[in-house]
Amino acid sequence: MIMTVNDYIQKHESRFIDELCSLIRIPSISSHPKHRADMEACALRWQELLLETGVDEARVMLSAGNPLVFARKHVADDAPTVLVYGHYDVMPAEPLELWETDPFEPVIRDGRLWARGADDDKGQSMIQVKAFEYLQRLDLLKHNVKFLLEGEEEIGSPSINAFLEEHRDLLKADVVVVSDTSMLGADLPSLTTGLRGLAYWQVEVTGPNRDLHSGHFGGAVANPINVLCKLLADLQDVDGRITIPHFYDDVEDVPDEERRMIAQIPFDEEKYKASIGVKALKGEKGYSTLERNSCRPSFDVCGIWGGYMGEGSKTVLPSKVYAKVSTRLVPHQQHEVISQQFTDYIRSVAPDYVDVKVTPMHGGEGYVCPISLPAYKAAEKGFAKAFGKQPLAVRRGGSIGIISDFERILGVKTVLMGFGLEANAIHSPNESFPIDMFRRGMEAVVEFHIQLDSEK
Amino acid sequence: MIMTVNDYIQKHESRFIDELCSLIRIPSISSHPKHRADMEACALRWQELLLETGVDEARVMLSAGNPLVFARKHVADDAPTVLVYGHYDVMPAEPLELWETDPFEPVIRDGRLWARGADDDKGQSMIQVKAFEYLQRLDLLKHNVKFLLEGEEEIGSPSINAFLEEHRDLLKADVVVVSDTSMLGADLPSLTTGLRGLAYWQVEVTGPNRDLHSGHFGGAVANPINVLCKLLADLQDVDGRITIPHFYDDVEDVPDEERRMIAQIPFDEEKYKASIGVKALKGEKGYSTLERNSCRPSFDVCGIWGGYMGEGSKTVLPSKVYAKVSTRLVPHQQHEVISQQFTDYIRSVAPDYVDVKVTPMHGGEGYVCPISLPAYKAAEKGFAKAFGKQPLAVRRGGSIGIISDFERILGVKTVLMGFGLEANAIHSPNESFPIDMFRRGMEAVVEFHIQLDSEK
Repeated sequence: MIMTVNDYIQKHESRFIDELCSLIRIPSISSHPKHRADMEACALRWQELLLETGVDEARVMLSAGNPLVFARKHVADDAPTVLVYGHYDVMPAEPLELWETDPFEPVIRDGRLWARGADDDKGQSMIQVKAFEYLQRLDLLKHNVKFLLEGEEEIGSPSINAFLEEHRDLLKADVVVVSDTSMLGADLPSLTTGLRGLAYWQVEVTGPNRDLHSGHFGGAVANPINVLCKLLADLQDVDGRITIPHFYDDVEDVPDEERRMIAQIPFDEEKYKASIGVKALKGEKGYSTLERNSCRPSFDVCGIWGGYMGEGSKTVLPSKVYAKVSTRLVPHQQHEVISQQFTDYIRSVAPDYVDVKVTPMHGGEGYVCPISLPAYKAAEKGFAKAFGKQPLAVRRGGSIGIISDFERILGVKTVLMGFGLEANAIHSPNESFPIDMFRRGMEAVVEFHIQLDSEK
Repeated sequence: MIMTVNDYIQKHESRFIDELCSLIRIPSISSHPKHRADMEACALRWQELLLETGVDEARVMLSAGNPLVFARKHVADDAPTVLVYGHYDVMPAEPLELWETDPFEPVIRDGRLWARGADDDKGQSMIQVKAFEYLQRLDLLKHNVKFLLEGEEEIGSPSINAFLEEHRDLLKADVVVVSDTSMLGADLPSLTTGLRGLAYWQVEVTGPNRDLHSGHFGGAVANPINVLCKLLADLQDVDGRITIPHFYDDVEDVPDEERRMIAQIPFDEEKYKASIGVKALKGEKGYSTLERNSCRPSFDVCGIWGGYMGEGSKTVLPSKVYAKVSTRLVPHQQHEVISQQFTDYIRSVAPDYVDVKVTPMHGGEGYVCPISLPAYKAAEKGFAKAFGKQPLAVRRGGSIGIISDFERILGVKTVLMGFGLEANAIHSPNESFPIDMFRRGMEAVVEFHIQLDSEK
């Protein structure tokens, strides 16, 4: 009798956790160049772990940016190939003082693993790798599998396009599978069928050539903070729509059928508000909360700083102020077009009493996966087996820029088998991942591979 | 033959500079509590220096905040008394990286003394003290002199009102003299006859209870930075007027006579723009630059910070954002009334999807000195002697909150004999003071005291 996936997990779980923790302890933060050595260390550790699962080969490959990890298992020339994509880089952990335990020293508490990357995406990638290990060791795999783990996802995958172009043959596959998204809830399994794109800029406004005394100059010289606040405030109208000319030109309105499906998703607005501690919600007029955070574009100032930020008061008319500004895009909006529109618009409205500089930082397109895709159906069955109910197909508000690149460059669709939960607080202090979800996730992924062979 | 003030300066200048440097080396920054010991050290050093000039007594006196230094010289019961006010606290020196030399290690270069406090107000106070030393040592003083140096001017003198109330008799005087303002130019001597008031707040906007992923929540949850930018942008209309209801109720329009006087002040707008490195100026519609920065209220965001401020990009919908917000007020506007109006207005317009907290930080009234005042006439003659031409009477945009307190509590007017220059960059990196101005300032102050006796 074949050892079930659950028996296999039970037998090996403490090793799986140890292996995951060895990855988490490497602070592979891609947004700061000082972590370059950590990126290499993390890639090498993944290579080692992949080799131990029984792949034919695993390599660390160089790109213009951080290295990538590639591995493959060849089973049969006439069998399809699944390319599993994940990322080993993580978000910065700041503000550090809000973490209950060290973000890079994982601990298990209340049935969860607490650490930066516990979910996004070291934890979720580990589910894919360990499901493969089970299939491989028990000789259940009937198709070919490739792995690609990159180190720049959290900064918008700037090197991946050139990498995909260069290694088109090596990466050839019939479908891509990614575990880097969330479900609606632990008891509400779902598969993500759409993602938003992203365009992100740094805006720098310079007024006078030095900080001035606000008494001697205030009223006569434009204050760059006042000016930036006005520029940013004017980017949205009273209905919550973005005012950049032509911004909505490529936005398809949400089809009625999809709106009906979204309306069926169990959603408790009071609970949602309570979970994030707000008294009221605010978004684009004419759309529901679930539409606003998945199928509609958004505009967020992610950070702002300038002038006196210390204790007490300093009466200064500052020289400079900065902001990190982002928009989430929906499928068909092209981030490069939007980036140009934004830059042009800011330049056109920037007054002559300040200098405004826009630096594009990051961008990616949105994505839609058709639910008729055989690999999607296999994933649906995997989730149904692991969670005991049919998963809902939902569009999500986050962005994984590379998904649209896979389609454009490799010509393949991606199935998003994400096991995250909102409570896991990815990108925030105290990120965590439920231990139980590792088990269920592995069960779903194993079933996906098995079903994929029968879907042929 | 009596030794002239110039001969006296020549003989003692290196000692004067050494004494000033001994004060500057103490980083008496009042806006941060960690400098408490420096405040005490600086007060003690001033006490010592005052005693050495030949006063009858000098004391360090406690207040609810930083200590004050008081000294006096009694000459005759029937003679008037001049109270010299100054402050020994300084502004923070940040941003430190922009200083060419250590802000608290004074150096002489290009005929200037470079350091935080070289002008504001250690340097200028030293002019008053050394002019007194000359008059005292040469027995030229015909009236009584008192000194009061405080340590909280740069944070709005929060303890001085109670101190003035408590020591009304000790501080009794016929006129107050202050050297803490600027002239129009080194060749354009001027006396300040008006100052603006100030009201300063910290505003804190809280959205969700933690930083959120801008992809999962963006568009559905209000972003506190977006909201704060809108609140701050809406505080001024297109004509540059402040929109707080009733804000202008007590503002007297600038009298035509004063507008004509202001129009006579030599002012080269191109040079002004070039000196601060801006292509254009911006201010309230219907007023000239010199009116805008002296006789009209202004609104400046002095600092703002929130969300991700590091290198690269982080896609976050932040929980909190802060701003330091100030208005300069004109005579008759009461800072406490304005503070209440601001707080009420912000509360009234703050949307229910965020929490907005306003904390008043700092406040003071404006001031006007009549040019018919005998002490003003004496000062005018002092400046005329030292600079070889009649000084202009001008209103300035800065604030010295205590000036209106002297009038309200002690019932005396203040004459502002300031020797600063715009190029001295007070409150900015690389503050400096021209060595030559110490000499000219002393000459003007000596002549002021001599003329005061003949003006009686």
